[in-house]
Amino acid sequence: MTLKFSIHPLDRTLAATVQARLDSRTKPQGSLGRLERLALQVALIQRRERPELKSPRIVVFAGDHGAANAGVSAFPQAVTVQMVANFRAGGAAINVLAHQSGLAMSVVDAGVASSCFGPDRSEVEFIDAKVARGTANFIEEAAMTATQREAAISAGAELVHKWHGAGCNAIGFGEMGIGNTASASLITHALADIPLADVVGPGTGLDDAGVARKRELLSQAVARVAGRSLSPLDVLAEFGGFEIAMMTGAFLAAAELGMLIVVDGFITNAALLVAHALHPAVLDYCVFAHCSAEPGHRRQMAYLGVQPLLELELRLGEGTGAALAFPLIRSALALMNEMAGFADAGVSNKST
Amino acid sequence: MTLKFSIHPLDRTLAATVQARLDSRTKPQGSLGRLERLALQVALIQRRERPELKSPRIVVFAGDHGAANAGVSAFPQAVTVQMVANFRAGGAAINVLAHQSGLAMSVVDAGVASSCFGPDRSEVEFIDAKVARGTANFIEEAAMTATQREAAISAGAELVHKWHGAGCNAIGFGEMGIGNTASASLITHALADIPLADVVGPGTGLDDAGVARKRELLSQAVARVAGRSLSPLDVLAEFGGFEIAMMTGAFLAAAELGMLIVVDGFITNAALLVAHALHPAVLDYCVFAHCSAEPGHRRQMAYLGVQPLLELELRLGEGTGAALAFPLIRSALALMNEMAGFADAGVSNKST
Repeated sequence: MTLKFSIHPLDRTLAATVQARLDSRTKPQGSLGRLERLALQVALIQRRERPELKSPRIVVFAGDHGAANAGVSAFPQAVTVQMVANFRAGGAAINVLAHQSGLAMSVVDAGVASSCFGPDRSEVEFIDAKVARGTANFIEEAAMTATQREAAISAGAELVHKWHGAGCNAIGFGEMGIGNTASASLITHALADIPLADVVGPGTGLDDAGVARKRELLSQAVARVAGRSLSPLDVLAEFGGFEIAMMTGAFLAAAELGMLIVVDGFITNAALLVAHALHPAVLDYCVFAHCSAEPGHRRQMAYLGVQPLLELELRLGEGTGAALAFPLIRSALALMNEMAGFADAGVSNKST
Repeated sequence: MTLKFSIHPLDRTLAATVQARLDSRTKPQGSLGRLERLALQVALIQRRERPELKSPRIVVFAGDHGAANAGVSAFPQAVTVQMVANFRAGGAAINVLAHQSGLAMSVVDAGVASSCFGPDRSEVEFIDAKVARGTANFIEEAAMTATQREAAISAGAELVHKWHGAGCNAIGFGEMGIGNTASASLITHALADIPLADVVGPGTGLDDAGVARKRELLSQAVARVAGRSLSPLDVLAEFGGFEIAMMTGAFLAAAELGMLIVVDGFITNAALLVAHALHPAVLDYCVFAHCSAEPGHRRQMAYLGVQPLLELELRLGEGTGAALAFPLIRSALALMNEMAGFADAGVSNKST
């Protein structure tokens, strides 16, 4: 697997045809609002007038962070591996939502600090792609080496190739990793040029004093690299997690393969910021599932100039927002594909 | 069927138990945001710690308005009966969305101006409850008589009793009626005390000149009743449609029966404003599906102090927003009912 990706902006050749189809359905023109724009986007991604989701999948990338036990999270680091076991046993929120939304589900150990264990439920695919047992503490040193970063990006891309090869054309990414809002805050600050204070939040549930302490610790990480000019890949190595680096590769491969990508929350968007800095056209393939309660998420979306489908004050991660958005995407496609036209239904259009 | 309804505010006895269950699921406390509040509401409505949707149904009430041909709509009045035929044939947006969301669907002729016709698809129930062939033109006279209003409210309530008796515990209401945003604007202005200009919008697609003309016509309707003190039921008779009056009865009966009610757009909310003015506790049973692009809808929700689940710039009616919200409600309940607890899953809680 090479780290070169070839990502093309959407070919808009079909746009007029698809829009004409939408406008001839039995409804006032444009009255399905954002669902119409969503249907158009998926049609252009798939280069088909009548797009459809095939074997849609949600993938949860898990990794640990050396900084987790320095005081940046409300939960102990052991929760990462415990939650991986919970995903494999089918008991987590993302299991419930993937099932509700008719999505296949994979859990990837991108770099959990201890050995992952089962039991596996048959409907959950577990993949051991551990790059290392957690990152180094980014407050004091680079989180990962260039070699580790490239291994993670490659692994993410390879996995997407595997699922695509098995017939999947729509994929949602989520994550699990105690401490990873801290990592995402640093990446967002560095790549989107947003003041650190505006992208540091409570994560899984820090109180005000905890957020202040987290901000102080992250300021030390920022100070550590002060004066250096960091490329997007440098930023990923300095501050990233293995789950974030692997998602970066997954985003790039999915866009290269022309898949629909459903983007989850703050941490997933941090991975997308890296992918976007390398290949801006990746955005054309993304649907933004939701805006979470983590304050930096809204800032990321404003930076990217994108709009979320849902706003439910979620702050859980795992891909839960992405899973919740899939029924809206399915509905948008079903409306385009299954509604009657004015002529066929014998309904008068506005102008007639 | 009497016009008396007995509607009780939610019994909150179970609230602490349900909240404790939510808080012991394997996720940071409160991290499922609005889905947790939604699950709690449905649990209290059903008085069950583990609530579920049974035979959920979407109902489209159709009616015509005497004012329709006076210039308040972008579409001709004939579209109402044509769209009823489209509902019965399965070709409209609400058919597609009801199917996607796993909802049974009924179409009710509450007062269409001409005779409704098929063909019927077996999965769509059609009910002839026609009160009259359209309302009178409310710009010039009262839209309906007191007798017609009571017949419509009774019919709406009776239908809800019928579905409830057949096992339905969750219902969404929508509507079809050329000209009915005009009716809804007048009702909203009168009951929510919002300036007329703030609740008159483009409806199915008037341009700016059309909106200005609609506002002028509706000002005449307001002037016609100036100086009179109108009760909520008077407002309904002066400005309502039969579909709106029938929905008012349906709202009241559904709340009385302890059903979950999913509220659609601007016109549906106008019916709810009448129901709410009569029995404020009806709101306890309502979930607000979406905020539409019709500007008065946001004002109605601000007046009621409620928040929509979705904001997708829809402006179609038919119950489409309600149908789109059902998967979120199902997901909220599934999360509460199916997620593992911290102890069972062997996951450390924040405080441990």
